[in-house]
Amino acid sequence: MSIITIVGAGMMGSAMCFPACDNGHEVRIVGIHNRESIESVRATGYHTTLKATLPEGVKAYHIEELDEALDGADLVISGVSSFGAKWFEETVLPKLPEGVPVLSVTKGLEADEYGNLTSFPQGMMNRACKPVCICAIGGPVISFELAARKQTEIAFCGPDMKVLEKIKGMLATDYYHISLTKDIAGLECAVAMKNAYALGVALAIGLNEKENGIGTREYYNPQAALFEESMREAIKLIQMMGGGIESIVFFGGDLYVTVFGGRTRKIGTLLGRGLTYPEAREVLTGVTLESVAIATLVTEALRKKAARGEVDLADFPLLKHIDEIINQGKQVSIPWTDFEKVTE
Amino acid sequence: MSIITIVGAGMMGSAMCFPACDNGHEVRIVGIHNRESIESVRATGYHTTLKATLPEGVKAYHIEELDEALDGADLVISGVSSFGAKWFEETVLPKLPEGVPVLSVTKGLEADEYGNLTSFPQGMMNRACKPVCICAIGGPVISFELAARKQTEIAFCGPDMKVLEKIKGMLATDYYHISLTKDIAGLECAVAMKNAYALGVALAIGLNEKENGIGTREYYNPQAALFEESMREAIKLIQMMGGGIESIVFFGGDLYVTVFGGRTRKIGTLLGRGLTYPEAREVLTGVTLESVAIATLVTEALRKKAARGEVDLADFPLLKHIDEIINQGKQVSIPWTDFEKVTE
Repeated sequence: MSIITIVGAGMMGSAMCFPACDNGHEVRIVGIHNRESIESVRATGYHTTLKATLPEGVKAYHIEELDEALDGADLVISGVSSFGAKWFEETVLPKLPEGVPVLSVTKGLEADEYGNLTSFPQGMMNRACKPVCICAIGGPVISFELAARKQTEIAFCGPDMKVLEKIKGMLATDYYHISLTKDIAGLECAVAMKNAYALGVALAIGLNEKENGIGTREYYNPQAALFEESMREAIKLIQMMGGGIESIVFFGGDLYVTVFGGRTRKIGTLLGRGLTYPEAREVLTGVTLESVAIATLVTEALRKKAARGEVDLADFPLLKHIDEIINQGKQVSIPWTDFEKVTE
Repeated sequence: MSIITIVGAGMMGSAMCFPACDNGHEVRIVGIHNRESIESVRATGYHTTLKATLPEGVKAYHIEELDEALDGADLVISGVSSFGAKWFEETVLPKLPEGVPVLSVTKGLEADEYGNLTSFPQGMMNRACKPVCICAIGGPVISFELAARKQTEIAFCGPDMKVLEKIKGMLATDYYHISLTKDIAGLECAVAMKNAYALGVALAIGLNEKENGIGTREYYNPQAALFEESMREAIKLIQMMGGGIESIVFFGGDLYVTVFGGRTRKIGTLLGRGLTYPEAREVLTGVTLESVAIATLVTEALRKKAARGEVDLADFPLLKHIDEIINQGKQVSIPWTDFEKVTE
């Protein structure tokens, strides 16, 4: 039995209690903002945003008890969103004893001033003052389905296969299936970008509603066309970051679940209906929109690289259009013809 | 203006009338079996299985008028299913004057005695006694959505880029977007295999209904896990056939639309619920099941190649299981753990 500390008690971090507890570990979860969820877990085990009762034995901590929660941990799971990545790096990483690996659920990328993209785990490891092994989870997971112990297939990536194998041994169950890869860039690019592109696919849902009314039947040719173009652009981004093309399978699976529901589908649908970005943002006040953040960051990075002739923005017509809608006030007008390609 | 003759008046062949007519061509459509649809089109323009009125000017022919329909054609579109491919090759191809290209909507592969797989267009061209240029359409299209002129993105593949460009010029519209590729093997493998794998993804839908009742909420983690594994296996098959990995985007897009509805989802769902294959087949009496045919053919081919050590069947656990359900009477028991991979 090991001690696993999950920092961040959002949906995905909290759902990780299930495979962790089912392996018999001592599981501690630390709420950063959500005091109500932590109080509720302490009182009854029920997590108020995940809307599930956590397995018996999970110990819940408030953020001011972080040190206590980290004491003796064999594995720390970072449950923060991309907006909390910097905080995790600055606040939690320095507290970890050498040899304690991190497994991160955070999805996102960072860019330098030249537009070069780096995965969060790689960026953190590059900047760390002492050796630290940061691994990450990628692949299709809806958190409440994991909490319901539905069959789930994801991958852990990281720099050290031995560490990955050890963490897999701590978390694998008969419903939580784990592939292992050292391709951090490929997996992290894939799963970060699916948020941006799920917004893109959802534009077609909104466009159809605009034309035929909300609640009308869905049409799938346009969605599939956007799905196809999303994969095409994602392959180029994965390759640009030096990742392996095999990671596209996690992009595909993750895009599939992300289009079906949740906040990313919602924002894309609202924009497709013709709302401006500020109007759509207002409907979703208070909701974390990683899709918008990653689309903006990566398009800005690509523009910088394009200015130096390192990439051709014409290879990313969908992402470029998503960025124009969000950041330049453009009306949705999918550049369908730009998706046509010629392969000799 | 050119003359375009569509042989086969099924859903997909008939839907091709729309981009063809919208380009101002003379369009002739030949029914092979469906006399009722042809009579109806002649009388009122309404196609009884596509449930759409074909564009004005479409000329409908019965099979005994084939010669008349082919006379002077500049392009012949093959609208037959994989079960009609041999018939098309033996009956229609010999009638074509040299220089008239074929554009095929047929999805399927053929295997030789050693288990080597070949695309239909390549197979036909290899066997043809005179030069013939067979091109094919691949990518996500629901026929009635094309008939409703919804935005659709597909690819034409063929051996000659000049011919492909010419056919694209004849059929491209502002809703029918055409990529061009000389990667016949890759595109044809991708779009043939999506039928087999859409059955695979749909197994999860049926399994959930079996556990929680028909009409219950869907869970997406298991479907996405199967989607992910489908892509992984499809990449291997495309590469095995010498195709380019970029064709995986058409697999992904096409899998996406195919899972949402129609006969392939239905058979997979029924099997997932626990019906044996003969029971499920009976529910779908009279329905053409390309998914079953292609899964059977390709698994048999892989077994032959595996026996000679050319492939490892362990790389195709999902396809193998689909084949076992269909052809060996096995109960559905998804080999989730076999999907876990390690990438150094």
